[in-house]
Amino acid sequence: MTESSTGVVVHLDEGEPAKHASVLRNLGNLLDTLGPQTRVELVVHGAGIDLLLEGSPHSEDVRGLQDRGLTVDACGNTLSSANIARERLLPGAVVVPSGVAHLVIRQREGWAYVRP
Amino acid sequence: MTESSTGVVVHLDEGEPAKHASVLRNLGNLLDTLGPQTRVELVVHGAGIDLLLEGSPHSEDVRGLQDRGLTVDACGNTLSSANIARERLLPGAVVVPSGVAHLVIRQREGWAYVRP
Amino acid sequence: MTESSTGVVVHLDEGEPAKHASVLRNLGNLLDTLGPQTRVELVVHGAGIDLLLEGSPHSEDVRGLQDRGLTVDACGNTLSSANIARERLLPGAVVVPSGVAHLVIRQREGWAYVRP
Repeated sequence: MTESSTGVVVHLDEGEPAKHASVLRNLGNLLDTLGPQTRVELVVHGAGIDLLLEGSPHSEDVRGLQDRGLTVDACGNTLSSANIARERLLPGAVVVPSGVAHLVIRQREGWAYVRP
Repeated sequence: MTESSTGVVVHLDEGEPAKHASVLRNLGNLLDTLGPQTRVELVVHGAGIDLLLEGSPHSEDVRGLQDRGLTVDACGNTLSSANIARERLLPGAVVVPSGVAHLVIRQREGWAYVRP
Repeated sequence: MTESSTGVVVHLDEGEPAKHASVLRNLGNLLDTLGPQTRVELVVHGAGIDLLLEGSPHSEDVRGLQDRGLTVDACGNTLSSANIARERLLPGAVVVPSGVAHLVIRQREGWAYVRP
């Protein structure tokens, strides 16, 4: 299997904290089951962005998953349209120009897509 | 990149107007970011079908996206089971036999899939 | 087309009976439209698991789809964390270690992914 096929993007655009908790559990399961050679990337846009802001009730869980290898992407379009400064993002979050476009780009690179 | 890998299907089966507005914004972002060589196709079925009917509060937005290259597909199974005449669809909407099957067919052709 | 590209995984993690009914209709449409050479597999985890438990209001519909070729997978992580014995699953349901990871594995095998 080539390097390009060893990742998965997980798509979050919903704002409910219970949904966020559930998606974080899913991410933990992916990291547990797929092993360290699989990159796992969470792409957040729209109403989901609260998960990645300072003061998120799930900030410790996000950090714990990042420590296990999770990459966390915030949508630049969402930040702009909601007037959110990048400085308010949790540490380590990456800004991609467009969350939905990034989901397409990763699939073109051979990554799987999961939308919990 | 071959022609077969240059598209994305966006899946909508929810009926809430706020969801429709959000999906239309996502489609605009995809068209902005991925460029004219990427085909963008919205596949609508189930409760989502209202978006594509005459009198939809989003009909102008749909037309604006179509003018920018968006293809809009309505599920023939949904039209049949809800007894909706094709004439009630917005101009330019294409009827596919089955919305869910069309999403599979496009992925087999190498297209990416996004379900906002 | 190689054998590896002839399947589709359908993802269910929501608990509402109306959602379950809708997903079962989608599965019937996939079986009708894609033909017998396409494997169709439903992967259920999280709150969706009720669909696959004894006493599910949709148990007859699930059986009817299984008779037409549908494979039904239950997430082992969900069963463990919810303390559900495998014996409570509907007949023929398969337990996979992780529902979300299984969705990734199938896509790596060339299957399409649909999340209604």
